[in-house]
Amino acid sequence: MSTPTRTEVSSLGEFGLIDHLTKNVELQHASTILGIGDDGAVIDHFGKQTVISSDLLVEGIHFDLTYTPLRHLGYKSVVVNLSDIYAMNAQPTQITVNIAFSNRFSVEALQELYEGILSACNKYGVDLIGGDTSSSNKGLLISVTALGEVAPDQFVKRSTAQKGDLICVSGYLGGAFLGLTLLEREKRIYLENPQVQPDLENEAFIVGRLLKPEARKDIIQYLEDQQIKPTSMMDISDGLSSEVLHLCKQSQLGCRIYEDKLPIHEDARRAAFKFGLDPTVCALNGGEDYELIFTVRQDDYEKLTLQEEISVVGYMADLDEGHKIISKGGNTFDITAQGWKAF
Amino acid sequence: MSTPTRTEVSSLGEFGLIDHLTKNVELQHASTILGIGDDGAVIDHFGKQTVISSDLLVEGIHFDLTYTPLRHLGYKSVVVNLSDIYAMNAQPTQITVNIAFSNRFSVEALQELYEGILSACNKYGVDLIGGDTSSSNKGLLISVTALGEVAPDQFVKRSTAQKGDLICVSGYLGGAFLGLTLLEREKRIYLENPQVQPDLENEAFIVGRLLKPEARKDIIQYLEDQQIKPTSMMDISDGLSSEVLHLCKQSQLGCRIYEDKLPIHEDARRAAFKFGLDPTVCALNGGEDYELIFTVRQDDYEKLTLQEEISVVGYMADLDEGHKIISKGGNTFDITAQGWKAF
Repeated sequence: MSTPTRTEVSSLGEFGLIDHLTKNVELQHASTILGIGDDGAVIDHFGKQTVISSDLLVEGIHFDLTYTPLRHLGYKSVVVNLSDIYAMNAQPTQITVNIAFSNRFSVEALQELYEGILSACNKYGVDLIGGDTSSSNKGLLISVTALGEVAPDQFVKRSTAQKGDLICVSGYLGGAFLGLTLLEREKRIYLENPQVQPDLENEAFIVGRLLKPEARKDIIQYLEDQQIKPTSMMDISDGLSSEVLHLCKQSQLGCRIYEDKLPIHEDARRAAFKFGLDPTVCALNGGEDYELIFTVRQDDYEKLTLQEEISVVGYMADLDEGHKIISKGGNTFDITAQGWKAF
Repeated sequence: MSTPTRTEVSSLGEFGLIDHLTKNVELQHASTILGIGDDGAVIDHFGKQTVISSDLLVEGIHFDLTYTPLRHLGYKSVVVNLSDIYAMNAQPTQITVNIAFSNRFSVEALQELYEGILSACNKYGVDLIGGDTSSSNKGLLISVTALGEVAPDQFVKRSTAQKGDLICVSGYLGGAFLGLTLLEREKRIYLENPQVQPDLENEAFIVGRLLKPEARKDIIQYLEDQQIKPTSMMDISDGLSSEVLHLCKQSQLGCRIYEDKLPIHEDARRAAFKFGLDPTVCALNGGEDYELIFTVRQDDYEKLTLQEEISVVGYMADLDEGHKIISKGGNTFDITAQGWKAF
């Protein structure tokens, strides 16, 4: 019988640890001139523009290790940054990863985290080019910076939507929030009574949406193949309501969203009813789906209908027409951002 | 009489806070195509290569707010990253800053932190182009990523020193460690007896070395003006011993360092004696000086002597000659890295 191995980080030291965690890193991009192991990395995007995005994930705020496998956490910490790069209409090429961790983490635990990080690098074709490891007095911190490239001036901002443009979203909305609701509920039950085993049967979809999101590389590829350049775009990390208000504010426009057009997966709808929640509210205000929201000219409508993973949910209106959602019953409500999870 | 104002972060919200903290940001580089306010920033280095470096600073591990003013902390968190960019022989151009903070931090406190960040940006001519703010359950976290540019293939690595090259360091060594020793001592005294006022008189030099380090932009400029391209280079963040062993390991060489050549400031020497410490040990093993260590060909020796802020402290030897320091008394000792503060 074998017991799990626990290697103390102190037995390797900082540099030994970095070597150990990154020994399987293979550089894939010609633009990566110099990777891990120096004061900085060097990249050369050969006549392209560089896009950069950065996020900090804090244990207890952004993730709960009670129900988040470290491998999934590593994967997700990369994906959420790549999502930002795609949302600029760019292709991610390199990342740096800084981690800080308390002494409850072993080398094996950090290795699992890195396996997830490298798995995401591999899947999305990005090079891990640097980073810093240090200790923390409480829990785990992960800060990822992603770089991408885009042909000169082909990036897409939030501020350039036009009146009449169609508002589109990729994939499904609300699932990650329902996954979080489920896992938080099961955690509470478990803490009250450790004999009860978690009841996650049939909930693979919503749990997967929370723990292993994907960035929508495929959608950016589709838009390029179809020669559709969105007039504005961003990723959906804080919920559709919040993001559509960003696009409107920065483009100085109003909008109309149709409740019956919101893409809600059947499994998410079922879970919402089970928890006594309104699926529409989950789709509007639930965060962490990492889908894309973008606007296109009406002329592009036909091309969009070929792609099942894109839903047209409304259109941009004049600023003085306000920001409204039209319910299935035909009533009109103001769209409001439901605050901000991270405060 | 006025009382200090305390504005709760929650009164602004995430986006209001970012707007508030970054409202004075002015972009200085033509290469900064798009700054704060979108999913990512966009840069175009117009035929240059991009250098990138990233660090994570954790309260209680990397800094102690008992004696670190937030403005200085903001300044230093930028400088330590710029130091890495200069150590690649590149010019820093942009930074992103992610912060996470507990609810004990007010808007005014964060504003002080940002004043320091922007002051460093201003002094070194870099653009703040993005970042993320969120909450933390304990203390303050700062993750800075710096980008720089360098003419194609003019960056300087750690691995390219040659046998016989001169080992040079900029400025003075050991001061920051002595500043830390002093402040930790005064903190202990204060905690034991809050009536006793800190005794920092005449210690401005070592305290300044710890709290407000500068990156050696001037040295990189001097080397360029003199047309000296270092054969290898890095910055000194963990102490000279540790760094020279890095250069040797990566260049597969040995070295000789001369104790009497180590640049130790008179104020640091005096402080060391006061604390019963050996100034040489402080210079070899004390971290956080953020000076540069680099190697040059012997032919460049004459040019170096024109610059008082550069000291030649030894030379690179064959690997089998080992890594040695020759004491003032003529004895030879092995150079050893004194572990790693951050674990």
